[in-house]
Order: sequence, then C-alpha cells, then structure tokens
Amino acid sequence: MKFLVLLSGCGLGDGSQIEEVMLTYLVLDKYGAEYDPAAVDMIATGVNHLTEKTEGLRNVLAESARIGRGRIKNLAEVDLDQYDGLIIPGGIGLLTSYKESSIVHETLQDFYRNRKPILGMCSAIALLKKHISPIIFKQFDETIGAKGYVFDGDFNTYYTPAFRASQDMYEVLQGIDSMIRAVVDD
Amino acid sequence: MKFLVLLSGCGLGDGSQIEEVMLTYLVLDKYGAEYDPAAVDMIATGVNHLTEKTEGLRNVLAESARIGRGRIKNLAEVDLDQYDGLIIPGGIGLLTSYKESSIVHETLQDFYRNRKPILGMCSAIALLKKHISPIIFKQFDETIGAKGYVFDGDFNTYYTPAFRASQDMYEVLQGIDSMIRAVVDD
Repeated sequence: MKFLVLLSGCGLGDGSQIEEVMLTYLVLDKYGAEYDPAAVDMIATGVNHLTEKTEGLRNVLAESARIGRGRIKNLAEVDLDQYDGLIIPGGIGLLTSYKESSIVHETLQDFYRNRKPILGMCSAIALLKKHISPIIFKQFDETIGAKGYVFDGDFNTYYTPAFRASQDMYEVLQGIDSMIRAVVDD
Repeated sequence: MKFLVLLSGCGLGDGSQIEEVMLTYLVLDKYGAEYDPAAVDMIATGVNHLTEKTEGLRNVLAESARIGRGRIKNLAEVDLDQYDGLIIPGGIGLLTSYKESSIVHETLQDFYRNRKPILGMCSAIALLKKHISPIIFKQFDETIGAKGYVFDGDFNTYYTPAFRASQDMYEVLQGIDSMIRAVVDD
C-alpha cells in the first residue's frame, strides 16, 4: 500500500504535530508500507515555540520539508491516483492554514469519493468535519484514549486522538500502530 | 533515571535530526525514564530544507523548542547535577553550531568527569571526539549497522550510527532502543 501523508508545517503551534508525524513514519516503515509526505506551497503566520507567541511568516511547504524525509511533495503537483490512502497527523497548522484551503478540500474529497481510507489524528478531526462532512464521527467514543482508534464506515475514515489523549509517546504509538495496521491488513 | 537530551535546532540540515530525537523520546517514555531537552540560546545560519540551500538566521533554542516537548531548557541555565546521563541525537546543527561552543564543551566534560553515561547518535560522534577525546571509539566497529550500538568503557560512552546506517525508522529504533535499554538496565 502507498499512503500520502499530509503535513502542515513543522511544529505543533503553527504546523504538524511532529511526534505524530514521526510515529506515523515509524509504523509505516514497520509494516513496509510506502509513503510520500506532501504539503501546500503557501505562506502562513509562524509561532515561536519557546515563547508560544506569534512571530514572522513561514512557507508551509519549506517548513514541512524539515519533517519530509527528503522527499516532500508540493500537494498541488501530486497525482492522487497513485495513493491507496491518506494520513493526516495533527497540529494547529491544520486549523490555521488548511481549513480554508481549496487544494486541501479537493484532496480530501478525492480520497473520500474514491472510498480510499482516510486516517486522522488529534486536531485532524476538525479538518475531516470541515472538508468531508460535519456528521463524520457523530457517535465518536471519547473514552477510547491514546491507545485506541475509531472507524466510521460511512466515510471509510479512521481516527485516533493521539496527543489529545496522552503525552506519553509509547501510548500514542500504540493507537497509531493499531489504526494503520487495521488499514494495511484490510 | 533522568536524562538531558541535547538539541541543536529542528531539522537535519541546520539542527537536530528530528527522527532520532523523536525515537529517543519514544524509547525514554517506553522505559519510564525522565528527560529534559535543552539547547544553546544562540543565533545560527538556517537551511531551507526544500531547496537545501542556506537561508536566513535561526535561534537554536527557539527552533529546538519545536521538538522540545513543551519543556525545553536553556543549556546555560541547566543544573547538570540533576541528570544521570546525556543523550545527543545527530544532525548537522551539532557540527555547525556546537563544535566551537564553550557551554557545550563544559556540559560534555561535566558528564565525562563524573563518569555519567553519554549516548550519541549519527553525527554526534564528531562532537564526542571534539569535546571529550579524539581517541573515543578508536576501535569503532563500522559494521554494527543501525540496529546495533557500540560502548567505549574508557569514556563510559555509547554510540549508534542511526540514520547514518539506515533510512528505515523501525531499524533505527532498534539501535536506539538497545542502546538506551543498556543504560537504563545498568
């Protein structure tokens, strides 16, 4: 299987949640799945992660390249037909940069319309509700915790709360591992 | 046990190798070890990870905060007596920012003089040779690979090549896990 991993920058405050991105790669490598990271070529407001204050401007694609494993792609140039599934790690960048992005909307809609699995983490749930359907995960079980995940068959979409539910990377890994394994084994 | 994790920025080209930092946290969380990330408050030349060209200036401490798990410390303000060991993930930032740093030199010397374990990865070997001794890992076995590690008893220092030996995160994890487990179990 080959996955597209949607990045939104490098760092929880103004981009992707780095821990979730790295644990995603780790699990994909573990199961021998192929993957390409991609991000939108756009300018966004930065955050100083030391002071947690807004500071300067950053290019989302160039920042994402820091966690792009040397093969980051510009989302606008990606051939979506090449991929069997979409993975969206969390981070505030999803909300500040991608909620109004038409290319992100078209990307999520493409995977959804083709019934390809979409896997979200943490804040990605807001992006799924915005760009796929507001009723996705309507019966979401808040008690699953970081080690678990939920599946919404109507939308062929998976979700694990990840760092929203725990600060322990080993616990979060178990949720991401279970979720990805369910898709790879399917 | 409580470890200090030395960061040098956020991204292989001008800072810490992010994969190695995250796998380090993952293993420390797995074994229930405590840890604090720390970096030097200094300005360094940045690299655009998309074009791989030099671009702009970045504050090493503020950039490290992106992978600092919300509790990054200024190395100059760290009480080294609180820590049982030092972990140094790789990345070019170690070479471009820390080879001439007196605070980094004093930090490594402090752990070495007190016979506390020092654990390095990837490019960290150059920092160990510079700030501890040029004869460290003199009989280094180049064949260990990403899943292995070496130990130099004269300097109580451990080393795994990590991404220098493999691009597969799951293989690299096994080397980092074995190395840290050897110290935690000791």
